[in-house]
Amino acid sequence: MPAAQTPDPRQHAFVQSILATAHSLSANSPNRASTKAQGVGSAPVNIALSKYWGKRDAVLNLPQNGSVSISLPGLGSETQLKPAVAQDSVWLNDQQLDASAPFAKRLSEFLNLFRTAEVPFFEVVTQNSVPTAAGLASSASGYAALVLALDDLFDWQLPMTQLSLLARMGSGSASRSLYPGFAIWHAGQQGDGLDSFAEALDAPWPEFCVGLVEIDVAEKPVGSTAGMQQTTAACALYQAWPAQAERDKAVIIDAIRAQDFSRLGATAEHNALSMHATMIASWPPLLYWQAESVIAMQQVWTLRQQGVEVYFTMDAGPNLKLLFLAAQKKAVSAAFPGLKVIEPFSS
Amino acid sequence: MPAAQTPDPRQHAFVQSILATAHSLSANSPNRASTKAQGVGSAPVNIALSKYWGKRDAVLNLPQNGSVSISLPGLGSETQLKPAVAQDSVWLNDQQLDASAPFAKRLSEFLNLFRTAEVPFFEVVTQNSVPTAAGLASSASGYAALVLALDDLFDWQLPMTQLSLLARMGSGSASRSLYPGFAIWHAGQQGDGLDSFAEALDAPWPEFCVGLVEIDVAEKPVGSTAGMQQTTAACALYQAWPAQAERDKAVIIDAIRAQDFSRLGATAEHNALSMHATMIASWPPLLYWQAESVIAMQQVWTLRQQGVEVYFTMDAGPNLKLLFLAAQKKAVSAAFPGLKVIEPFSS
Repeated sequence: MPAAQTPDPRQHAFVQSILATAHSLSANSPNRASTKAQGVGSAPVNIALSKYWGKRDAVLNLPQNGSVSISLPGLGSETQLKPAVAQDSVWLNDQQLDASAPFAKRLSEFLNLFRTAEVPFFEVVTQNSVPTAAGLASSASGYAALVLALDDLFDWQLPMTQLSLLARMGSGSASRSLYPGFAIWHAGQQGDGLDSFAEALDAPWPEFCVGLVEIDVAEKPVGSTAGMQQTTAACALYQAWPAQAERDKAVIIDAIRAQDFSRLGATAEHNALSMHATMIASWPPLLYWQAESVIAMQQVWTLRQQGVEVYFTMDAGPNLKLLFLAAQKKAVSAAFPGLKVIEPFSS
Repeated sequence: MPAAQTPDPRQHAFVQSILATAHSLSANSPNRASTKAQGVGSAPVNIALSKYWGKRDAVLNLPQNGSVSISLPGLGSETQLKPAVAQDSVWLNDQQLDASAPFAKRLSEFLNLFRTAEVPFFEVVTQNSVPTAAGLASSASGYAALVLALDDLFDWQLPMTQLSLLARMGSGSASRSLYPGFAIWHAGQQGDGLDSFAEALDAPWPEFCVGLVEIDVAEKPVGSTAGMQQTTAACALYQAWPAQAERDKAVIIDAIRAQDFSRLGATAEHNALSMHATMIASWPPLLYWQAESVIAMQQVWTLRQQGVEVYFTMDAGPNLKLLFLAAQKKAVSAAFPGLKVIEPFSS
């Protein structure tokens, strides 16, 4: 039996209060507790245009501030989930993970929240089309896909906002990965965490492009959760972050609705740099950038000086994600050979 | 006649109130107004261990926060000052500057505060042993040397704290360059700026070493004054900076007195990174770092992991200044070939 079989009581209560609303679990449902042989789910990665950085409640994964994201179709996770008998088994990209691997342990702890008498263990088979832990938030698509697979396996038929709450327990940014296009994760205010979910911002923008500049796809030396803890605990400048992040979020939502790309790009880049500034101003310092990150940033600024309107955002890693409109695709691609360009609304 | 012949009235009043205390200008002095044929002055550059970043009064050059520095003997400015007849002439490292050069214009504006009927113009001949505007604060040693040369030329015989007030009008950090060793620049609280001067922190520390890692000695694209304006005007995180800087200053003064190198080094590095964080979080972003700066930082962190106690500080430029004790000189020099090591107290 895995060590972490007993879930945290607050987490367990949170999940139970959501599952109590599930169609299939309600007392008068004809489909009550109709566990399938297999559940499947798939979800895209997402890139935050205004960032989630810092938790106000680490147990319930509640953020200090809201955030806005864009999902990247074609990059993400596909998960199959089956009941298992003796223990969890986790397969990632056709490789079985050792139960002691950090990834498998974290997954099993999350699954502790969902075990039943009928399904004491799970077999999780995931295909990730993005490098794990490279700043492309594979945990976001991973937990979103897993929650969709759980919903399918147990036939809960929960609405997306409720699944978003569950995905948040696995990884904060997973709350946003349930949706295509733009998504808003509300910080929420309640202590019970039931108002901190993401929802779709339905505003298709066919010209909107994201370019992935891969500096380094190696595992991050300091994961996001540890990085957030370091920043919130030991960075004086961080005290100004949550208010800025909320302001940036509001500006970006407005800019998306108005299709004001200059405003969106400038605010997203400023927001990302401000988040990195809080890391840099922590002690010990937390610098996710590499030399090549700085070169790529300077290249973006040079392009802008030359009239090519492109902005960048960065997550807790060295890679840049470029934001531009389709009209600039050629110029941006010429400056960044090998750039992977994704058009979230043109598929 | 130069255009900026009339000084700012507040600056002029400030300078007059200081000169009124000068021995040679007092009514009952036998040496009254005994202008010499030439004045000379020399001053070292200084490196702030806790930084000056942001002005609370741009006209009187009053800082948002106090700072602490270490002067580097052997690197600095030597200035000769003579009365001139028709116009100012400025020589820097054996080259006469055009009157329209930014450096010469700024100098002439400063000299506007000191012109007399007897000395309407100045010939300024300066030798700088540091690259101009490369983040090694040549303006600090330059204005400190110039003020000493003015004091000599006009035979004011002002005390150092009063000369520090005058040097501050040329460049904030020049207030600290009048002293060898450690110096404290008090932020002051008065509106008239007369309490914002530097004084020596007399605490010789023979083992204390500074190593200069020169990444780039080219002119900075954005000077310190413009950089500060950008940060204070357009950086939400900056609001937490002045209080942190004052705390860091106090910790560093204590650490110097206690010769607690670990505390000094960690606080100085954290302070410098926090200052850069405020720049990075400005909009438009202000990144003085180059790719090589990041490589050098990572090298310092690797050395520390290996047990070599070395820290860095950085000013508004790409270069690193390493802080370590003499016992680590060999190990640090081995990791940074070509490192220029200065031992401020061992000459």
